[in-house]
Amino acid sequence: MREILIIGAGRSASSLINYLLDKSASENLSITIGDQSIQAAQKFTEGHPNARAILLDVFNEEDRRAAVESADLVISMLPARFHIEVAKDCLEFGKHMVTASYVSDEMLSLDTKVKSKGLVFMNEIGLDPGIDHMSAMQVIDRIRDGGGKMLLFESFTGGLIAPESDNNLWHYKFTWNPRNVVVAGQGGAAEFIQEGTYKYIPYHRLFRRTEFLDIEGYGRFEAYANRNSLKYREAYGLEDVLTLYRGTIRRVGYSRAWNMFVQLGMTDDSYQLQNTEDMTYREFVNCFLPYSPTDSVELKMRHNLKIDQDDVMWDKLMELDLFNNKKTIGIENATPAQALQKILMDKWTLDENDKDMIVMYHKFGYELNGKRKQIDSNMVIIGEDTVETAMAKTVGLPVAIAALKILNGEITTPGVQIPIAKEVYEPILKELEDYGIIFKENFADYLGYNPDNIIG
Amino acid sequence: MREILIIGAGRSASSLINYLLDKSASENLSITIGDQSIQAAQKFTEGHPNARAILLDVFNEEDRRAAVESADLVISMLPARFHIEVAKDCLEFGKHMVTASYVSDEMLSLDTKVKSKGLVFMNEIGLDPGIDHMSAMQVIDRIRDGGGKMLLFESFTGGLIAPESDNNLWHYKFTWNPRNVVVAGQGGAAEFIQEGTYKYIPYHRLFRRTEFLDIEGYGRFEAYANRNSLKYREAYGLEDVLTLYRGTIRRVGYSRAWNMFVQLGMTDDSYQLQNTEDMTYREFVNCFLPYSPTDSVELKMRHNLKIDQDDVMWDKLMELDLFNNKKTIGIENATPAQALQKILMDKWTLDENDKDMIVMYHKFGYELNGKRKQIDSNMVIIGEDTVETAMAKTVGLPVAIAALKILNGEITTPGVQIPIAKEVYEPILKELEDYGIIFKENFADYLGYNPDNIIG
Repeated sequence: MREILIIGAGRSASSLINYLLDKSASENLSITIGDQSIQAAQKFTEGHPNARAILLDVFNEEDRRAAVESADLVISMLPARFHIEVAKDCLEFGKHMVTASYVSDEMLSLDTKVKSKGLVFMNEIGLDPGIDHMSAMQVIDRIRDGGGKMLLFESFTGGLIAPESDNNLWHYKFTWNPRNVVVAGQGGAAEFIQEGTYKYIPYHRLFRRTEFLDIEGYGRFEAYANRNSLKYREAYGLEDVLTLYRGTIRRVGYSRAWNMFVQLGMTDDSYQLQNTEDMTYREFVNCFLPYSPTDSVELKMRHNLKIDQDDVMWDKLMELDLFNNKKTIGIENATPAQALQKILMDKWTLDENDKDMIVMYHKFGYELNGKRKQIDSNMVIIGEDTVETAMAKTVGLPVAIAALKILNGEITTPGVQIPIAKEVYEPILKELEDYGIIFKENFADYLGYNPDNIIG
Repeated sequence: MREILIIGAGRSASSLINYLLDKSASENLSITIGDQSIQAAQKFTEGHPNARAILLDVFNEEDRRAAVESADLVISMLPARFHIEVAKDCLEFGKHMVTASYVSDEMLSLDTKVKSKGLVFMNEIGLDPGIDHMSAMQVIDRIRDGGGKMLLFESFTGGLIAPESDNNLWHYKFTWNPRNVVVAGQGGAAEFIQEGTYKYIPYHRLFRRTEFLDIEGYGRFEAYANRNSLKYREAYGLEDVLTLYRGTIRRVGYSRAWNMFVQLGMTDDSYQLQNTEDMTYREFVNCFLPYSPTDSVELKMRHNLKIDQDDVMWDKLMELDLFNNKKTIGIENATPAQALQKILMDKWTLDENDKDMIVMYHKFGYELNGKRKQIDSNMVIIGEDTVETAMAKTVGLPVAIAALKILNGEITTPGVQIPIAKEVYEPILKELEDYGIIFKENFADYLGYNPDNIIG
């Protein structure tokens, strides 16, 4: 029996745990699930012969070290900032480690020691980051292996509501951490490169500079720029590429409407409003509008944002019951973003029968034999229910598959890494296909952003 | 002879030093000017019998302590973050201290010890903060002493170009630190209170929510909100006031035009642009506009900001030569704000014969004997030349006068303080009148922002 220790039994871990439990008999796995809530862990292990739940507080050094020492491989599904202590234990006791989180500087600093012990510390192997790395590198390597030269790479991901559950004007519900959605795009200007020109979009303009994406069978989407599109330029070997852009996918119209909140200042998470405990939704809105007691909050809002009465933007606000003078925020010292999140959660929380949807879209522009070409590649995954969501599946399965392949010696190159090597992405993407995680490719002539070759 | 040590002989110190030198004979003063540039110090002391220049690096503990020990009072004109070491020496050796800077938490923490030694540590006694505190408290105390109840306090200050030197479309030149002008308003939403309602304006909307101010003989001005209007609520005893607002004064039209830079993201100081050393002004502008080689930077800008060709906003941009494709930023790793500052300094630097102008405007609303009334009070100061500027005068004279009055025992209440006590502001404001620093008052019925008493 090989022992896998999974730390963190939150919602996002269900597909991951179920995959490993399903394989436990045939693969001779003993699964230990550690969580600070023993109930959360037991929910998964109950009645399963190869699984046990343990109470595990990662700040309890003794317990943590004992748990790591007795495992062959450790999967940490904790928030990213808690990985490092686990990682140090894994290094000391010579255990492999897998996480879905971004590689922190601290994690990266372990690389030399991890390598010298022959250990694999695989990170960023969830959905985004994760499946995006693997699916992108697979196509990029194929283009290069065929003699092509990369010109353009764009990559977009969105966690959305499935078409069959899409019943509000925003075409959006919270399928993951609501807070991340409310503060998305903050913390600095978005930076990317288009046809060799660096471009910068400040946060307050981010949601007005979108680009459309069409997916057969699913209709049109839009995407706004992520903060740092250049992050993986070196890792992907795209130093000379002319266009590099990463974005977040929403349904068309979302960004224009979300921009209303940005313009008013409602998404700010950097300061606290006064008296938010008893503040009504209407008062919250009025905080951001000029004082004018002779005018209604509604009219001030319309005037401020220049919304005509027959504009669907207005209907979107009404749908959120934003001007209600009875409902209260009910949070002490709330930031604007926290108050807005409260209002949105009334309307955007998944119903019992709702399904989520993950959409990923890549564009690869390249030159081959003097001709410019483009491959567009997309993946759409619909969740099964509110537990086996598309998000849990696309985050958890790559983690689980990677863990097993490391344990089975199929992935062996040691070091602190992300899944961009062929040895890693090929077998994982192949197995993901069995679970319906499949990319569809379309070939086209390369247009890029400068089809007439004008010097701009 | 009483010795005054002045640390920092920068441009802002000229009026301050000249005042004390002029009084040195009659008041028995020996003036020591310490600066890290001995030449800068000597420029003031040359040929003056009661003055001497010393080389003083505040980080040289021995020199600094020796200089403080031999003085009776120390004036620090250093940047605010350097005051604390001087303050600790003053405390140890039992010397009074005067600065024009905001009271830092560290400075405030010395209060008990400063009091126990009977020392006066006077801060925020320049223009803003300084004259604003004194002139406001004088009227507020007068209203209260007469039985009035304060309802509204608004206070506005601006460092501008004098009408006779106002020869650009922006009606603005840099009369003080250009960097502070470019990043003005950043770092969080503006917070204030109007008729009992808290209001918040995010940075990217700040320059579109201005208010007009008219001053007889000088025409119309506009003001945008400062970040924290509530800062002195307790200090001024205005806890129950309905309206509290502090703002920055510009000539009408400046804010609407400045907003173009804000919208594009050009005032951001939080990240570095790529390749700024050789970047042309035109390329700088293009960084913030969508990629579109078939369109000119000019047309993209007009479209992006919705500027008609006959809009004066456009003329303001042209005046700055913003689309020049020869002139370069010439700064390595510049932030957008640094690059913009470079462009503006080409056009907004004071000419040899230019004069600056300081404008301050207070509004005091109050209730007396059941009637609501309002006093508007304003001060306009025109500089003499590019050395004896209105800014140097209004910052330096209150510091100098306060220093002498402390030395002469006219201001005695000990502690780390700001000039809001009658003992302090009365004699200083009285003497400032001799230098033309005079407020004009206008009386009116109180209108406030809710003249019809509507519950808004």
